[in-house]
Amino acid sequence: MNLNIALLPGDGIGPEVLAQAVKCLQAVEETFNHNFIYKEALVGAIAIDKKGSPLPDNTLNLCKESDAVLFGAIGDPKYDNNPNATVRPEQGLLKLRKALGLYTNIRPVKVFPTLIENSPLKKEIISGTDFTIYRELTGGIYFGEKKINKEGTIASDLCEYSEKEISRIAHLAFKAAKNRRNKLTLVDKANVLESSRLWRKVVAKIGESYPEVKLEYLFVDNAAMQIILNPKQFDVILTENMFGDIISDEGSVIGGSIGLLASASIGDENALFEPIHGSYPQAKGKDIANPIASILSAAMLLEHFKLFEEAMAVREAVDKSLKKGVVTPDLETKSQYGTNQVGDFIAENI
Amino acid sequence: MNLNIALLPGDGIGPEVLAQAVKCLQAVEETFNHNFIYKEALVGAIAIDKKGSPLPDNTLNLCKESDAVLFGAIGDPKYDNNPNATVRPEQGLLKLRKALGLYTNIRPVKVFPTLIENSPLKKEIISGTDFTIYRELTGGIYFGEKKINKEGTIASDLCEYSEKEISRIAHLAFKAAKNRRNKLTLVDKANVLESSRLWRKVVAKIGESYPEVKLEYLFVDNAAMQIILNPKQFDVILTENMFGDIISDEGSVIGGSIGLLASASIGDENALFEPIHGSYPQAKGKDIANPIASILSAAMLLEHFKLFEEAMAVREAVDKSLKKGVVTPDLETKSQYGTNQVGDFIAENI
Ligand SMILES: CC(C)[C@H](C(=O)O)[C@@H](O)C(=O)O
Ligand SMILES: CC(C)[C@H](C(=O)O)[C@@H](O)C(=O)O
Repeated sequence: MNLNIALLPGDGIGPEVLAQAVKCLQAVEETFNHNFIYKEALVGAIAIDKKGSPLPDNTLNLCKESDAVLFGAIGDPKYDNNPNATVRPEQGLLKLRKALGLYTNIRPVKVFPTLIENSPLKKEIISGTDFTIYRELTGGIYFGEKKINKEGTIASDLCEYSEKEISRIAHLAFKAAKNRRNKLTLVDKANVLESSRLWRKVVAKIGESYPEVKLEYLFVDNAAMQIILNPKQFDVILTENMFGDIISDEGSVIGGSIGLLASASIGDENALFEPIHGSYPQAKGKDIANPIASILSAAMLLEHFKLFEEAMAVREAVDKSLKKGVVTPDLETKSQYGTNQVGDFIAENI
Repeated sequence: MNLNIALLPGDGIGPEVLAQAVKCLQAVEETFNHNFIYKEALVGAIAIDKKGSPLPDNTLNLCKESDAVLFGAIGDPKYDNNPNATVRPEQGLLKLRKALGLYTNIRPVKVFPTLIENSPLKKEIISGTDFTIYRELTGGIYFGEKKINKEGTIASDLCEYSEKEISRIAHLAFKAAKNRRNKLTLVDKANVLESSRLWRKVVAKIGESYPEVKLEYLFVDNAAMQIILNPKQFDVILTENMFGDIISDEGSVIGGSIGLLASASIGDENALFEPIHGSYPQAKGKDIANPIASILSAAMLLEHFKLFEEAMAVREAVDKSLKKGVVTPDLETKSQYGTNQVGDFIAENI
């Protein structure tokens, strides 16, 4: 298969971990006889520094022309504590999601048996956990109108959803549940928010076309408890943008390391793959960042193009690195392996 | 001391648990020679059923005239899954918070050593946890303009904050931090939301008047992880309404039981005390609901009026019930004690 892959390393540890994912894709090309073409472009804080924009035009164009985007990470502390900054790295990612129409963010949460002891949660609570979060990614309060009055004393953000925005992701989530354990949990705050009530109405209606899927509702505050109290109860969780941001990061704790979690952002015409973790600037350039989340993003990319055998080869190589302890220090304090060595080991085992 | 206390039992298990809190207050009256006058009124689903409104006028008037409100719980499943209901029990609570100006919700999260094994989290992660969440309670997306178009296909909620709304609770939170371990963590999403950037700006400015307090910032998605990964790092958490709803419920899991957690909602002229848990309709009338959160709400009420010795007597009686295992089945599966017996035991030990 021929694939054009846009590489967006971004900020912080982004470039380091992305490089390992590319190594693995190259190993896949060789082993399975594919031809992937990689083109790199700037995004985030580094793009602001070099081009004055967190998403330069040529970056966006490259992504549009490519079959898929592999993304590193975004964000820089110099912008975080400056409420007056008018350009921010995160805008690059948000604009990219919107411009590519990536309305569905898929975040699988699974426990790796070899790492179960790393979790802050008790083994009996988490073992066997296997759910996927479908987070809406191009609507809601992230993209609603933002206002600040002239005096800078009143600020607002609008959370708006349309039936169409809800139904397209809802169909994907129901289909995913059908291929899994037939359970879908809608997380919302319908007892308070008008937009949540629209979610509940639209999703209930669509649910009628998927009679085999059991549809449940959970208020987001309760969901924030249930994910820790009993994560095994979930199969597919469907939710809006902001709630999805919060509960998927919360869910990432279950497996014991956010450094292992990948995500896919899917639209009707484009797809982007990225780790869940951020740019982790403190670790930048130290060769200590865990590359596995980025490598597993590449596996999700392969699955997106139905290269299931190839993806499995990547996943098995990752499992091997975990079993053999060829991992970065975040997973094993006394580990001697760096980002690069872990990437090499996994690529060699594909 | 003379106190007029409005009792709002509400729905589900509300009346059962509130009755135990009143028993304890009566024990305090006797032991310490106070005179509390209790007046009861309807709120929530039961108020809709009996009076057509979740917050009837006479309920609101009673609360306004009283020195404090002791609240049970609110909510009924018959409203939750009906997106077309125009009157909802929760509106009663929201309207009450707004009408009484209860802009600060204080939710302490502490681990009871006797219950540490009940937590889904590992002992070494949670032991020693002791933080307090200051949640803004009368602003933000809960109270912003709600819209739905004629066709019912587009819905929105507005999240708006003013400098004044932020600064009044921020001062309380900084003062609390000063009396504790001098650390304040502002939880927001300033990398995306305009309202969060206003929070950051206002809180940073106010922080200058509290130089002894170390101010830190955390994005809400990261906060949702940190609360589980390392809850001991927190002292006082300050946040807006919706984020506070989510992360305080999440935090309630740490201690192993939401049935133990109380909260105070404070304004310039009024104060309301309630458990964090909901109306738990499945348990209604079964004499199995845990009354401790409600009883500890009463302790917070006493502290609010500087009756510290009295509050301590209540807390010590609660500790005794935990140590002796006089607890409801949610805390000890084989327990033979019901709601009433636990309430009696605690009241007798005051
Ligand atoms: C960087 C930030 C804008 C982003 C988000 O909140 O969507 C990140 O937290 C994520 O979850 O992908
Ligand atoms: C009942 C509901 C409206 C309420 C809220 O979200 O504020 C509750 O969850 C709480 O946290 O007190």
